[in-house]
Amino acid sequence: MTGTEVLTGRVSDLNGPWLAEQLRLLGVDVGQIVVVGDRPDDLGSALRFLAASNDLVITSGGLGPTADDLTAEVVAQVQGRPSRLDPDLEQRIAAIIARFSGRLDPESTAIAVRKQALVPEGACVLEPTGTAPGLVVPVAAGRSGPPVIVLPGPPRELQQMWPAAVASALVQEVLAGAPELRQRTLRLWGVPESELATTLRRSEAELAGLEITTCLRAGELEIVSRYAPAAEPAQQRLLAAVRADFPAQLFSEGQTVDEIVAAAIWDQAWTVAVVEAVTGGSLAARLAQARLIGAVVAHTDAVLVDPVGVPLDLIQGRGPADPQIARAMAEGARRIFGADIGIGVAGSVTLADALADRERPSSVHVCVLTPDGGFTRTVPAVGTVGAVRGRVVPAALHLLRLALADA
Amino acid sequence: MTGTEVLTGRVSDLNGPWLAEQLRLLGVDVGQIVVVGDRPDDLGSALRFLAASNDLVITSGGLGPTADDLTAEVVAQVQGRPSRLDPDLEQRIAAIIARFSGRLDPESTAIAVRKQALVPEGACVLEPTGTAPGLVVPVAAGRSGPPVIVLPGPPRELQQMWPAAVASALVQEVLAGAPELRQRTLRLWGVPESELATTLRRSEAELAGLEITTCLRAGELEIVSRYAPAAEPAQQRLLAAVRADFPAQLFSEGQTVDEIVAAAIWDQAWTVAVVEAVTGGSLAARLAQARLIGAVVAHTDAVLVDPVGVPLDLIQGRGPADPQIARAMAEGARRIFGADIGIGVAGSVTLADALADRERPSSVHVCVLTPDGGFTRTVPAVGTVGAVRGRVVPAALHLLRLALADA
Repeated sequence: MTGTEVLTGRVSDLNGPWLAEQLRLLGVDVGQIVVVGDRPDDLGSALRFLAASNDLVITSGGLGPTADDLTAEVVAQVQGRPSRLDPDLEQRIAAIIARFSGRLDPESTAIAVRKQALVPEGACVLEPTGTAPGLVVPVAAGRSGPPVIVLPGPPRELQQMWPAAVASALVQEVLAGAPELRQRTLRLWGVPESELATTLRRSEAELAGLEITTCLRAGELEIVSRYAPAAEPAQQRLLAAVRADFPAQLFSEGQTVDEIVAAAIWDQAWTVAVVEAVTGGSLAARLAQARLIGAVVAHTDAVLVDPVGVPLDLIQGRGPADPQIARAMAEGARRIFGADIGIGVAGSVTLADALADRERPSSVHVCVLTPDGGFTRTVPAVGTVGAVRGRVVPAALHLLRLALADA
Repeated sequence: MTGTEVLTGRVSDLNGPWLAEQLRLLGVDVGQIVVVGDRPDDLGSALRFLAASNDLVITSGGLGPTADDLTAEVVAQVQGRPSRLDPDLEQRIAAIIARFSGRLDPESTAIAVRKQALVPEGACVLEPTGTAPGLVVPVAAGRSGPPVIVLPGPPRELQQMWPAAVASALVQEVLAGAPELRQRTLRLWGVPESELATTLRRSEAELAGLEITTCLRAGELEIVSRYAPAAEPAQQRLLAAVRADFPAQLFSEGQTVDEIVAAAIWDQAWTVAVVEAVTGGSLAARLAQARLIGAVVAHTDAVLVDPVGVPLDLIQGRGPADPQIARAMAEGARRIFGADIGIGVAGSVTLADALADRERPSSVHVCVLTPDGGFTRTVPAVGTVGAVRGRVVPAALHLLRLALADA
């Protein structure tokens, strides 16, 4: 992954995770991801490092028109393949730019096009999905080393170009040699990582052949195993051991909580509405696929009273962070939008807190009401508004999952 | 960065960007970020690769209680420093676990604590901010190489431990040798990258000493320069050249659009309310620091009519994706919440679209109304619901910025 903007943390790397998932679907194991800035030496040494222990190397980024976009040139050098201008490709890129243009300056366009139409000898050109073409560059004849796939940095362009890269003869040759790799994911809610460690240690001898990683985030514990098909019985033993020790907490053998919740709501043909305080719109954004018809974000007590309909004396008596307020918010959500399921998220965030993004202890109360009942739970959450959202949104989704399982 | 969950894209790396920013504040330039899975050989080769060209190496993750958490052990091997149990540290970790516990199993706890209390000879221990201690591990006596800072993976723990790592004698020694590095950011709205490339090429001779990177995302073009203090005059020439060529589009010499908008609204002591359709809560979530008092997410025509108050015949005549609907939504936002500024985001997303997350062409209409006036703009956006949100939310923020600049 090239780009000082990614290296310095100004832009988060969307391409690494996306490519890792695509490669997994092809049964390919990702060895390393290296992020480097827009400096030719750093990119060169990263390419040599990766070539030493991998069968295929992929780059993203650095194909743009500005002088700091150097990837194609550096890859050509490392692979030992001098670049030449491809006049047909130059024409095709110029035609694309002309379509976009209107206000583009012809001088800058011409230089940019010429730069982007330089192709290393023997490389396969991947047609532009934005303006820049991609490449598959083999190592120079007589040398040994993996081919390098060169892809553009904008995620949309990279994703659209990926099928052509996979279809190229050089990449197909690499893939033909790859053994099948399986991956399965188990997800638990409400289990400490050290308890799971005990289960795994107890079953250790039976789990040979599985590469198991566990990861705890926002209360969810994920167990991912990667294995060759011969280890399928070991995976079944893992599943049995986890089921035996955590029958209530194992909620998924693959699906995310978002998918489980959405499927249950579509099954019932119910609709969902939300009134949220501390989570400020992020719970609604997460429920877009779960038949959410409407939501109210309520950041002041006045908004809780009108339009949400929480009784003023309740707020005055108890403050906005209270289980009864959460229930009144969930009732308000159902009433305002005429929804089957109402969710209320009550907690206190003042405008000044939000501005300062300061740390504060909060108890956030979440209420889920379905046509069959419902319940309210308290989510302990400390930290900045962002950190509290990161804990409360998943907790609310799991509360909704449990309410739907009861229904 | 260790962790198969990061390498395979299931968790995005929050620590790399955060550490990069902290290092920048200390004037330290980040060379590379390498992400590896939980395999000792891969971590070992990454550490050796990074040690070859850097003065300091930092690891995050792999300090947990499960068997796949191997970082401390591998770092000790690479640095040539055998590990020993530190009984005092073991006691301190046990005391922390005891405080958390209640339902923890003593057997698993004891094994976990012993694992986490192994300290490489000559290493500096960083006290746990969760349960796992960090380390600063020098290379073995008689060998040359950078020290390695070993930090936990959970972002909150890593961030709390960072000051102790920086304060350690070994790290202070490295920092004492680092030259000052400056970084400045210019941001433009509505400029194609190739036009900026022309400006930069024209001024190339005057900009020696600046490492300039440009990055276009969601319509914003960022120009970041990194330079030694001696190149400050070149940075001033860059600023002058960009100002001259893009007087209207250069909107920031440092602040983000979120910060500019929030500051302008706090200055006026105005309040903000939103009614949003396609962006589904994500515009509200982004405006938390900009005196947002309330928002309505409206995913059906019925919700647009009640509670938002868009006239039914307007929707029936024009469909939900229309500039007049956006204006009625902005008016509804002001009326429902009694806010000074109302923002309406009109577009059509059906429940089925959201479920399938399918690509569809959309024109999204955004209206911003302030006490001094307002305007409506159309944002062309094609793609999945997620991609459309990624374009529309920044566009709405810039429209708000322009409306506030008029005020």
